[in-house]
Amino acid sequence: MTVELETGLPSVRQIQTLIREEQEVELKLTTGDLLAGKIRWQDPYCISLTDQYDQPTIVWRQAIVYLKPRL
Amino acid sequence: MTVELETGLPSVRQIQTLIREEQEVELKLTTGDLLAGKIRWQDPYCISLTDQYDQPTIVWRQAIVYLKPRL
Amino acid sequence: MTVELETGLPSVRQIQTLIREEQEVELKLTTGDLLAGKIRWQDPYCISLTDQYDQPTIVWRQAIVYLKPRL
Amino acid sequence: MTVELETGLPSVRQIQTLIREEQEVELKLTTGDLLAGKIRWQDPYCISLTDQYDQPTIVWRQAIVYLKPRL
Amino acid sequence: MTVELETGLPSVRQIQTLIREEQEVELKLTTGDLLAGKIRWQDPYCISLTDQYDQPTIVWRQAIVYLKPRL
Amino acid sequence: MTVELETGLPSVRQIQTLIREEQEVELKLTTGDLLAGKIRWQDPYCISLTDQYDQPTIVWRQAIVYLKPRL
Repeated sequence: MTVELETGLPSVRQIQTLIREEQEVELKLTTGDLLAGKIRWQDPYCISLTDQYDQPTIVWRQAIVYLKPRL
Repeated sequence: MTVELETGLPSVRQIQTLIREEQEVELKLTTGDLLAGKIRWQDPYCISLTDQYDQPTIVWRQAIVYLKPRL
Repeated sequence: MTVELETGLPSVRQIQTLIREEQEVELKLTTGDLLAGKIRWQDPYCISLTDQYDQPTIVWRQAIVYLKPRL
Repeated sequence: MTVELETGLPSVRQIQTLIREEQEVELKLTTGDLLAGKIRWQDPYCISLTDQYDQPTIVWRQAIVYLKPRL
Repeated sequence: MTVELETGLPSVRQIQTLIREEQEVELKLTTGDLLAGKIRWQDPYCISLTDQYDQPTIVWRQAIVYLKPRL
Repeated sequence: MTVELETGLPSVRQIQTLIREEQEVELKLTTGDLLAGKIRWQDPYCISLTDQYDQPTIVWRQAIVYLKPRL
């Protein structure tokens, strides 16, 4: 069984746009943490974020509460 | 495998009505956060909410506790 | 793939009875919130509760900890 | 698709034994609540507990952290 | 549909070894509780732990954060 | 049914690289705990981490919020 990103869904497509446009985002997590950075890639389980020092963080989708573009 | 919205279910249909009528709603999240806004779209994983300044927030369904129309 | 309520299960049947009898219930949620009201409908993802002012709240099943009839 | 209790599993069988023997148990829940009572039935989604006043509580399995027989 | 333990996976095999060797372990749970004891059995949903007074606790896997052998 | 690691996914491949390079990582967990160590193996349910004293901890993926390489 292979799990693939469902690229037809609005949530997946919007994240692809955020990656392409190198948009700063905020991710609110179930622990209450708020991470900021640019999304580098997404797969069915995780989203990778890099902060202003270009340090990567792999965030599990199961822990995401919401995502918003930074103004 | 494609995941689709099950448009026959009451919960999915009621959210479609809230989108069409541009009804203000409150979303209570697992972190205890309470977001307010109008729902723009839903897909099987997420619901997108825009606040009074028209800023979008993509909320993961897994993090939703309850939703109520605002009076 | 269609998800349906499994009407043969005790938990689903008891909620159907609570709906039919318009029984007041308490729902404890993962955030610690305790909601009170009457259940109007259930589907595989949500339960809808109306409070004493007849305001509806759509509660996600994933966020329910327990349900008890009010005395 | 029908979901059935897998009666061959140790966890399901031990709960059946606790029901039959009307053993008092403690259930620790994800909210930190600790419920005490006797288990009346189990299905794939829920466990029903009755307290000392014979009041029922339907507990969602997803919210159970641990179960122990009371001494 | 029958759910079976996937005995080829490292996590399942290591728990089998901990059972056979009657190794003391610590289990950290989502509530923040830390349980200590010996694992008696595992199935796809639960792990059973007995404490120093030989009292059993059935722990749901969904509530486990980490497990470590006690030194 | 056998569950296998989907080795084509970026998140799985990056963890394989972290294992091979014996890179120190930080794991943030749903309880708020932050564990540090080197990843020894991953399977579809768990990730094993060893700390500086070479003590192993089996972490359930369901409890992982994010992972970052230590600087």
